[in-house]
Amino acid sequence: MIITVVGLGVIGGSYVQALKGLGHDVYGVDTNEKTLKQAKQDGYIIDGFVDGHEIISQSDLTIICLYPSLVLDFIARHHFKKGSIITDVVGIKSYFLEKALKLVDNDVEYVSGHPMAGREKKGYEYASREVFKNANYIIIEHQKNKKESIEFMSQFVSQLGFKSVKIMSPYDHDEIISYTSQLPHMIAVALMNSDSQRFETGKYIGDSFRDLTRIANINADLWSELFLNNKEYLLESMRLFEEQFDQLKDALMNDNDEKLKIMFDESSRRREKLEK
Amino acid sequence: MIITVVGLGVIGGSYVQALKGLGHDVYGVDTNEKTLKQAKQDGYIIDGFVDGHEIISQSDLTIICLYPSLVLDFIARHHFKKGSIITDVVGIKSYFLEKALKLVDNDVEYVSGHPMAGREKKGYEYASREVFKNANYIIIEHQKNKKESIEFMSQFVSQLGFKSVKIMSPYDHDEIISYTSQLPHMIAVALMNSDSQRFETGKYIGDSFRDLTRIANINADLWSELFLNNKEYLLESMRLFEEQFDQLKDALMNDNDEKLKIMFDESSRRREKLEK
Repeated sequence: MIITVVGLGVIGGSYVQALKGLGHDVYGVDTNEKTLKQAKQDGYIIDGFVDGHEIISQSDLTIICLYPSLVLDFIARHHFKKGSIITDVVGIKSYFLEKALKLVDNDVEYVSGHPMAGREKKGYEYASREVFKNANYIIIEHQKNKKESIEFMSQFVSQLGFKSVKIMSPYDHDEIISYTSQLPHMIAVALMNSDSQRFETGKYIGDSFRDLTRIANINADLWSELFLNNKEYLLESMRLFEEQFDQLKDALMNDNDEKLKIMFDESSRRREKLEK
Repeated sequence: MIITVVGLGVIGGSYVQALKGLGHDVYGVDTNEKTLKQAKQDGYIIDGFVDGHEIISQSDLTIICLYPSLVLDFIARHHFKKGSIITDVVGIKSYFLEKALKLVDNDVEYVSGHPMAGREKKGYEYASREVFKNANYIIIEHQKNKKESIEFMSQFVSQLGFKSVKIMSPYDHDEIISYTSQLPHMIAVALMNSDSQRFETGKYIGDSFRDLTRIANINADLWSELFLNNKEYLLESMRLFEEQFDQLKDALMNDNDEKLKIMFDESSRRREKLEK
């Protein structure tokens, strides 16, 4: 099977790494020639192309690892092999799929995906197949998908190391992701920026602060695009969070020891069963 | 030097482990005989006592690793060696020190401390000297402290593995800790409890959600005591956080891409320089 990964950044680079040894012919497309050269030298791709037109027209599977708006641009400007599958790693789906499906030819199938794995750092040098190990993957099913294509993708990503593969609609995806991924990023940014800066903060932190702010180091262009195009769900998740936060504040203000403990027991119970 | 660690839970247990090999005579006091037996068998303590009266009266340094209210109780009910030092690991200081200092005899010195290290789990079996490695330690100085005692404590904890030792007033401590430790715990609880539970959440999370909710598994008794006795500072930290959170929400509602990016760049800049 000829597989081409488009965009050898931290995610695309991890894909080519994870694909090694699985028996496919893997190629890379990137605007950066140095990255292509490195990936080829590392033995992860057979060859790399700045202009992907030729290799894309021969690929059985094209994995596009670009920012959402660039994915659309890439699809519009390339001709894909008849009967081939295109997939992506875009973090939001309803808004995006509507646009993408209009661009994809009828003889090509678009199977949208979301690997719930990533790093704070950008670029090929931070790529690692390890980020997929035991991570969650979501396949986003739409009306034009064939059952066997969904099945193929499910098996394919399992081989890359993902532990759980779930299939859902774009709407459900965007709802759950607004809570499990987008809300945590908003919280981390707000926490980091709410520092009064009266002290040399780094000297007074433990692992809890480190953990909660790691993703405050955020790719501004990518995430503002993701947030703004999912704002209804995200605003609702933010509202639900604030509701809980306000309850904690009220309990604190009213010295309501009992209420605090009930909420702490609830969060402990939920956290413990989270990945069971 | 005779050192007695009172309370061999996750923190006290880590102390006796970290003390191994430093040349002191280390004893343990705990209400649980099994724990004492285990610590002795592990080679971390010379002997263990359920009733600590005799060993405490001979100790040069007593490290009390109990809940805040139990520390006060322990000090009131024991006689400490003349010229010896008592220290603690209590997470809030203004309220606590006021009470503790009234109980301590004039010929004994109380040097309050805060190791910024911990685990979500309770108990001796989760203790590990590793938690102190490269962690931050805060010494809380009060009017009765001698310069040489502060210096002793500073060198002592450095030997246990702490990377940074800072000395500050109880008030400054409680202010910074309300931000770096208490606020993150409140946020984690609110995030965990704001789950709509429409989906099997654990299958749709990445490391960001894992990191932000780890401390939502929280010791309810301990933390409600810590929060309620530091509520002025904590409420102010919560207010500052909400201010930032609301700014993000507004920018989102108004499709203010530019504002979002400015806030993301700011949080990224702050996070990057955090521990430099």
